[in-house]
Amino acid sequence: MNAEIITIGDEILIGQTVDTNSAWIARHLNAIGIHIRQITSVADTREHILWALAESEPRAELVIMTGGLGPTKDDITKQTLCEYFDTHLVMHDVIRERIEKWFEMRGIPVLDVNRKQAELPAACEPVPNTRGTAQGMWFERNGTVFVSMPGVPYEMQGIMTDHLIERFKRHFKAPHIEHHTIMTHGIGESLLADKVADWENSLEAEDIHLAYLPSPGIVKVRLSAVGKDKKAIQEKVFRKAQEFLDLAGEYVFAIGDHPIEEAVGKMLREKKLTLATAESCTGGGVAASLTKIPGSSDYFMGSVVAYHNRIKKEQLGVAQQTLDAHGAVSEQTVCEMAEGVRQRMGADFGLATSGVAGPAGGTDQKPVGLVWIAVAGPHRTVSEECRFGHDRERNIQRSIRRVLGLLRTEILAIESLQND
Amino acid sequence: MNAEIITIGDEILIGQTVDTNSAWIARHLNAIGIHIRQITSVADTREHILWALAESEPRAELVIMTGGLGPTKDDITKQTLCEYFDTHLVMHDVIRERIEKWFEMRGIPVLDVNRKQAELPAACEPVPNTRGTAQGMWFERNGTVFVSMPGVPYEMQGIMTDHLIERFKRHFKAPHIEHHTIMTHGIGESLLADKVADWENSLEAEDIHLAYLPSPGIVKVRLSAVGKDKKAIQEKVFRKAQEFLDLAGEYVFAIGDHPIEEAVGKMLREKKLTLATAESCTGGGVAASLTKIPGSSDYFMGSVVAYHNRIKKEQLGVAQQTLDAHGAVSEQTVCEMAEGVRQRMGADFGLATSGVAGPAGGTDQKPVGLVWIAVAGPHRTVSEECRFGHDRERNIQRSIRRVLGLLRTEILAIESLQND
Repeated sequence: MNAEIITIGDEILIGQTVDTNSAWIARHLNAIGIHIRQITSVADTREHILWALAESEPRAELVIMTGGLGPTKDDITKQTLCEYFDTHLVMHDVIRERIEKWFEMRGIPVLDVNRKQAELPAACEPVPNTRGTAQGMWFERNGTVFVSMPGVPYEMQGIMTDHLIERFKRHFKAPHIEHHTIMTHGIGESLLADKVADWENSLEAEDIHLAYLPSPGIVKVRLSAVGKDKKAIQEKVFRKAQEFLDLAGEYVFAIGDHPIEEAVGKMLREKKLTLATAESCTGGGVAASLTKIPGSSDYFMGSVVAYHNRIKKEQLGVAQQTLDAHGAVSEQTVCEMAEGVRQRMGADFGLATSGVAGPAGGTDQKPVGLVWIAVAGPHRTVSEECRFGHDRERNIQRSIRRVLGLLRTEILAIESLQND
Repeated sequence: MNAEIITIGDEILIGQTVDTNSAWIARHLNAIGIHIRQITSVADTREHILWALAESEPRAELVIMTGGLGPTKDDITKQTLCEYFDTHLVMHDVIRERIEKWFEMRGIPVLDVNRKQAELPAACEPVPNTRGTAQGMWFERNGTVFVSMPGVPYEMQGIMTDHLIERFKRHFKAPHIEHHTIMTHGIGESLLADKVADWENSLEAEDIHLAYLPSPGIVKVRLSAVGKDKKAIQEKVFRKAQEFLDLAGEYVFAIGDHPIEEAVGKMLREKKLTLATAESCTGGGVAASLTKIPGSSDYFMGSVVAYHNRIKKEQLGVAQQTLDAHGAVSEQTVCEMAEGVRQRMGADFGLATSGVAGPAGGTDQKPVGLVWIAVAGPHRTVSEECRFGHDRERNIQRSIRRVLGLLRTEILAIESLQND
């Protein structure tokens, strides 16, 4: 069955806000077998919202709208929905009381504009929002379900998780969609495709769709299949994924859409190993990535972000003569940083980055994009020179992934090193 | 004039990739007076791409497509464009040589699929891509311009910046759009709207559009106006923005769409003050936010991410008895962390966070969402207790913004404290 998403808000069309809601909704609907046909972002205007609704109604059995439900004047979705469904606003006293309590609990005065959020189109069934004051709404007409939710991601996610996903499951009995994602690191998209070319050709006969999704330092490989028989679909996708692993397993760091920081975290926890980081050019980004993962305190001890050379010396024990002879962005310094943090924080692995992230600070010998990374472990310290581009954020991002990739290799190597 | 964006790719419709390209393109087109009417995300299928092109052609003078141009089999945009413009692929030898060189320079073998990227529809004018091997394309038909670019954000941004933005400026002589964004912190959306209600009512008479854009801890306020006379438009928007500052200036931390880490960075640089951070629950996120800003090494010394209590003691000098008596998540500990990092890194300000980010680790007394923040300065240490929700990433994000907000207040207070 087909669903469409309509996101409402000038902030998306002028590019001030990135629409993360659509991806979230799509991911969660896909998981229950609902296929998103199209995502349309339209302006906060009556005409455009009406047009988008009328366009999608005959194409989709489910239309999900986000945005335009705030208490302020620029939010006009509710009035427009009244017009579209030929209905009028009615005050829901129970919801008004809930809104008043919501403000009371937070010690914020409740205003008339907030109370007005309890006025909803008579034709809709209200869907409660426990994370805010804008209510969700459920409409049905000619076999199509329309759902309207606030655009604040946290509130939309609450409404979907608490009330809608289970209800959609019951309401729509859609075919099963199986996605299987494999995460690779250390090989580019076209080399990888070349390596598995025969396997790729074999997918068509099995009605399996393949996609490569590259991002800095990482290529996601996704297999998808659709059908009524969940078990048969899962079995064939799983079999083909297994074949891929046989061909290119050395590049695979995770099965499923997991970031590399989660994959290495899992390895560290399983092997009861701990980690500390010493960061210069990544500025805390490695630590921030690692600690986004719940439970990372099991293996992550801490980090020293040593942006200034004085901190590299005082907090990490890098020798003044190393800095004088080789500079901060050098193999010698990054290795001393990794070894220093490993020792001072008493961790099994110490990981370090030092580079010229840009846009300024480059020289002929050490241009913008030059990054040294190192991993110090119980048996050895390894380092790598990276030459990235000119984009600061991208250089930081690639450095984070590269050093986590190197850590992964060193965790894998630890057993053979132990036996040496 | 109207433009539309069509993003092509199953990865967007299944929610595996967040479409950041549309926001980037919209922001850059808006800045040159081109208005985005609609953004449509469609599947990697011939039919859907053809339909989306046919829909937007009569509505827009510019249609921008991203995605589906990679070397792999799932990328079908080029063939579909041939069909839509009734043309065929031709090999461009100069481009093929450029692609071959691109691979040679990187020491990667060039494959036939890569060479094929030099085949482009005969009806298009190629637009060079210096950051990758998928070319941009420029088509014109019946007064509408169509541009197709790869979906990799870094490559798309390069093509736009190097070749398209200036060309659009010359090609379309659009009316001027003036956006004025004001960043506020420390007040919710509806309280703010109530505070400036009369002012908001006065905007309609001046044809100025207002939007509130809330995100955790921050409300952006955006004024927009359109017209031929750039100077007159700028003058009226500026005058109204000035009136807003008179009414709510105490909450404003930046004029323009600047993150709070950039605003405090600017203040630190201007006042020649330095900063160090000690982070527990934010896990390096404060340091990572600060160091995303180019030139942050002027004022940012470094950070200690003290995830384990042992690190809080050894690297920051938090007393064992403080930890025993009050626990890691407490006013006393967070103040000692801030003071410890300030002193050890020799900075003017030390900033600290300690909390229960979740989802696990909460107790009755210290529930998930409890975060203590502190700022230690030359004259005093201040702290704040925050009670956030249950979402780990959101709690981390809000903690980062809250502690940077507290730092901002303390930087502003420093002069009056000096005079005491």
